[in-house]
Amino acid sequence: MVETIRIEQKILGRNDELAAQNRSRFDAAGVLAVTLVGSPGSGKTALLEQTVQSLRAFRAAVIEGDIETDRDAQRIGRLGIPVVQIVTNGTCHLNAGMVQKGLDRVDLPNVNVLFIENVGNLVCPAAYSLGEHLRVVVASTTEGEDKPLKYPAMFRQADAVVINKVDLLPYVPVNLAEAREFVRRVNPTADIFETSCTTGAGIEEFSRWLADRGR
Amino acid sequence: MVETIRIEQKILGRNDELAAQNRSRFDAAGVLAVTLVGSPGSGKTALLEQTVQSLRAFRAAVIEGDIETDRDAQRIGRLGIPVVQIVTNGTCHLNAGMVQKGLDRVDLPNVNVLFIENVGNLVCPAAYSLGEHLRVVVASTTEGEDKPLKYPAMFRQADAVVINKVDLLPYVPVNLAEAREFVRRVNPTADIFETSCTTGAGIEEFSRWLADRGR
Repeated sequence: MVETIRIEQKILGRNDELAAQNRSRFDAAGVLAVTLVGSPGSGKTALLEQTVQSLRAFRAAVIEGDIETDRDAQRIGRLGIPVVQIVTNGTCHLNAGMVQKGLDRVDLPNVNVLFIENVGNLVCPAAYSLGEHLRVVVASTTEGEDKPLKYPAMFRQADAVVINKVDLLPYVPVNLAEAREFVRRVNPTADIFETSCTTGAGIEEFSRWLADRGR
Repeated sequence: MVETIRIEQKILGRNDELAAQNRSRFDAAGVLAVTLVGSPGSGKTALLEQTVQSLRAFRAAVIEGDIETDRDAQRIGRLGIPVVQIVTNGTCHLNAGMVQKGLDRVDLPNVNVLFIENVGNLVCPAAYSLGEHLRVVVASTTEGEDKPLKYPAMFRQADAVVINKVDLLPYVPVNLAEAREFVRRVNPTADIFETSCTTGAGIEEFSRWLADRGR
């Protein structure tokens, strides 16, 4: 077991180095890098679709991380946004090295905001910095209110938590005030947004928050 | 990297040994062991609540796996079902060794069906056998239809796929026929159920399927 831990520390140490290199590239090009993480089906791609359209004044690009398929990249590509698909082939998270390879296919000098959508997983991506400036956790109302307590590592690191699918609130047994309170309990400083990618609710507020942080 | 892979093979090999030991204990006690896996918030605990009540003729017990908190165990305990909570402290999946420790606190000779609810994660639990007889993937209608294609490892291993939250079908942009077809594409033999833990739809069919496999 000691050997395993040593290997893990080596991997995470190397990841941090590559993440720092990614960050330098973002900063040199004046790019705001934003990671989206969340459970499968929480609505990360839908939120991206809405947000890049709302941020038309910005030149956006997207890196999509998936275990298999390029379905998400196809969705983003249909909007005319430059998109790079990373297929992890079974790996449960993106790491900084994968993103670095993806960056070689992004025209960074012509981008203001780079979104990186991680693999749908509320656990493992928390351990791997990608060099991003902002981390956004997307959680759906249908997941219930207690996920921040049950998966605290991810919520603790978030700069923003987006509670998505608020259009379903009349139909799901979830208490939104309690959901917010549980986010607060593990992360007192994250900004919290309530959105629906079906009705467009909250998209403008979230986009404005991003725009305020862009360069 | 070669070193990492060797360590991983060692861990998985050791896990398989412990899983085989668990399986022997289940078989010696005449216990059907059923694992529930799925995304956070797909409704694994709600399905368990409904199923153990529907299977009153069976003596059920539950092992709950969570990264943090004993909230799910409390929910099951309220039904008067024996329940053991395993807190993984950050680990993204249960392994056979954790379950082995949990089994020491289960009165196996007085149990017919043991449910093991894994950490909410559609990726990592796929790599770790727990010695179970049956694996059930719980996927919610709100996650969209394409998750079998995007997370194939988990769906490929399933004996049954439960498409949960069908009561939300009128409100979510999901095509149920396509969802079934995508399950079929990665796993032609899994039984597919459609359930709602709010209305109780499909619970009887799913419970009967389990009862038919009980000893």
